[in-house]
Amino acid sequence: MGGTRATLTREAARALDAADPLRPFRDRFRLPPGVVYLDGNSLGPLPAIAVDRLLGVMEAEWGDGLIRSWSAAGWIDQPTRLGAKVARLVGADDEEVLVADSTSVNLFKLLAAALKAAPDRPVILTEAGNFPTDIYMAQGLAELMPGVEVRTVGRDSLASALDERVGVLLLTHVHYRTGEAFDMAAMTRAAHDHGALALWDLSHSAGAVPVELGAAGADLAVGCGYKFLNGGPGAPGFLYVARRLQARLRSPLAGWLGHAAPFDFADTYQPADGLKRFLCGTPPILGMAALEAGLDIMLDADRDALFAKSQALCDAFISAVEARCGGLGLELVTPRTGPRGAQVSFRHADGYPVMQALIAEGVIGDFRAPDVLRFGFPGLYLGFEDVWRAASALQQVLASGGWRDPAYSTRAAVT
Amino acid sequence: MGGTRATLTREAARALDAADPLRPFRDRFRLPPGVVYLDGNSLGPLPAIAVDRLLGVMEAEWGDGLIRSWSAAGWIDQPTRLGAKVARLVGADDEEVLVADSTSVNLFKLLAAALKAAPDRPVILTEAGNFPTDIYMAQGLAELMPGVEVRTVGRDSLASALDERVGVLLLTHVHYRTGEAFDMAAMTRAAHDHGALALWDLSHSAGAVPVELGAAGADLAVGCGYKFLNGGPGAPGFLYVARRLQARLRSPLAGWLGHAAPFDFADTYQPADGLKRFLCGTPPILGMAALEAGLDIMLDADRDALFAKSQALCDAFISAVEARCGGLGLELVTPRTGPRGAQVSFRHADGYPVMQALIAEGVIGDFRAPDVLRFGFPGLYLGFEDVWRAASALQQVLASGGWRDPAYSTRAAVT
Repeated sequence: MGGTRATLTREAARALDAADPLRPFRDRFRLPPGVVYLDGNSLGPLPAIAVDRLLGVMEAEWGDGLIRSWSAAGWIDQPTRLGAKVARLVGADDEEVLVADSTSVNLFKLLAAALKAAPDRPVILTEAGNFPTDIYMAQGLAELMPGVEVRTVGRDSLASALDERVGVLLLTHVHYRTGEAFDMAAMTRAAHDHGALALWDLSHSAGAVPVELGAAGADLAVGCGYKFLNGGPGAPGFLYVARRLQARLRSPLAGWLGHAAPFDFADTYQPADGLKRFLCGTPPILGMAALEAGLDIMLDADRDALFAKSQALCDAFISAVEARCGGLGLELVTPRTGPRGAQVSFRHADGYPVMQALIAEGVIGDFRAPDVLRFGFPGLYLGFEDVWRAASALQQVLASGGWRDPAYSTRAAVT
Repeated sequence: MGGTRATLTREAARALDAADPLRPFRDRFRLPPGVVYLDGNSLGPLPAIAVDRLLGVMEAEWGDGLIRSWSAAGWIDQPTRLGAKVARLVGADDEEVLVADSTSVNLFKLLAAALKAAPDRPVILTEAGNFPTDIYMAQGLAELMPGVEVRTVGRDSLASALDERVGVLLLTHVHYRTGEAFDMAAMTRAAHDHGALALWDLSHSAGAVPVELGAAGADLAVGCGYKFLNGGPGAPGFLYVARRLQARLRSPLAGWLGHAAPFDFADTYQPADGLKRFLCGTPPILGMAALEAGLDIMLDADRDALFAKSQALCDAFISAVEARCGGLGLELVTPRTGPRGAQVSFRHADGYPVMQALIAEGVIGDFRAPDVLRFGFPGLYLGFEDVWRAASALQQVLASGGWRDPAYSTRAAVT
């Protein structure tokens, strides 16, 4: 490992930030002073407007409006209204995305609906080392539906593992650990060539990189509200069903809000026309209000510029770390070029204590077992000086061996 | 229909309220002035402390703590910590209740887990006219699991419909429309006598009436956070699994947080020991903070006194309405005596416009198709003067025929 570019200086970083047209977006988040926050891919920071939004929902809508707010404040339409906002971030039509439940639950709904519709194709094909909940939900479904089988193969064997028994190709677009991205259009085409549907997990893509579900021909997708969409801890997830599939898929989680006429209180489930059939229980209004704050900020940004900037931050971080930390035990995991997310991962044999020490220095990334240091670079609120500070702190921690000192971890644990 | 007691006067109602030791709890909610809120069984009112709690979670925990709050602020333990609080309200042990997902999703998890564990008993027996989501979720599961069958029979035929094919007796403890309550212990015993498990939906019971899951021998239960628990719109639901069953039941929604070691990121699902295996996705922290505010208020109250007061309010409302509204087309639906919830329903041929007119008068109840006016009487924040005002308004609306005037509905629709 070695640096291939000139080291980023603090002055150069500041100059880049000063010239950045996206810079004002940083002020729309409440970032704690002194912290370089590189874990927005686990939990995005607090949008300043989210606080007032929540207060308004609580005091005016819940407090004063009470039950009337389901119609008067439009609560009942939140899943479709917010879904339409997410749709604009993932290249879908308004009527193709719903905000509801968690990513995991949404995944179950779509997997089950797809397999149920194609009983002669009982195999879910996915990547070994995919994000665990994706694999686990598929395994849980396989225990429930006789004959259903989860086939996990290495990334490079996916295309050859497609056959006429595969009903769903389930892939995470940007890998949570490595940041490597699939070519969504190519893999979707491969699935279609074998008669399978493609279900994409966008948890590390939506709001991080360009996603064009419609143009890629994607069939189904799910994603997460609390990472790059900055929707708050445990924000609701989302789901996408291409319009052409909506009428023939049915969610097994046949909750009352997915009924064609929920307020008729009939004894027999009749799915709503269109996407609403994928609703289940009552929408979490407080969580949705916070998520909408995050979505609104992102929708204000020039997303081409935003995604380009995130990539530039990743490049700058890789260069700076390689220039400063050569010989200190780091190995780049994320692709140096080519399709990837807005995140950079390095392997280090002592990744866990190194990350704890780094957090104690005010640079918050995260650790993914067994040995990965992961750093997220959402261009919406980060700049090049953050890159400089993070690389400097990483160098200092590694070069000093400070991470071997338990006091670091102790400090980290209480901050 | 006719009154059997002296009409409640406003003065008498005020005297009862003045002598009520629970009266101070009313001030712990932000009730809009001039409104008599009798729909807390659909959406409980805003606890005053919920606003500060949410602000604290947003600003200090999310804003400043960021990802660190999953451990430092105990977010990761919210499902079990809040579950233990709910447990105290439903007669369960701390380690038997989780707060997670929605009531509907929790129902699916438990139904599927129970049926999977007893493949020779593929029938879900439930009541015709049960709350729709209960029936629909069972129907959705039946479409997924071959052989599973949903048997719906009238309330009086439930006991005789139990046979050796029934795996789960699924009942809502307090009926959402009529308020009638089952004898939980007796029906659970009947289920057990036939080798079935009893799954109770406590949506209209928890926080409304005494519930003793443990003493009743109940196997499984789910419930709602936003009704009598005052947890806010779309608050997370809860689930109960008797300790004796936890090791042998597995949730089909095998999400990563239900894994024995979620942060190992292994490729194979291994359920956690105990109740945590019923977790799925990431917990909705904002919704949970609001729910905890509601739970904490209720845990402060003398619940024997609270439940007795709620029943007294129901009795007083029935008496007052019968004394004032004789011959005006109302028919009592709720049991006059015997086990029932904290709610009173009357049938009226023009129930919908009558309720709209009543709402325009500032008395908020709700309408349940086709003809039911439903009024909730949670003793935590209502008093006898509210009963007097509601009965007076109902008399006025009915006697004047004002509900026939579309202007009423228009006013109601905009408030």
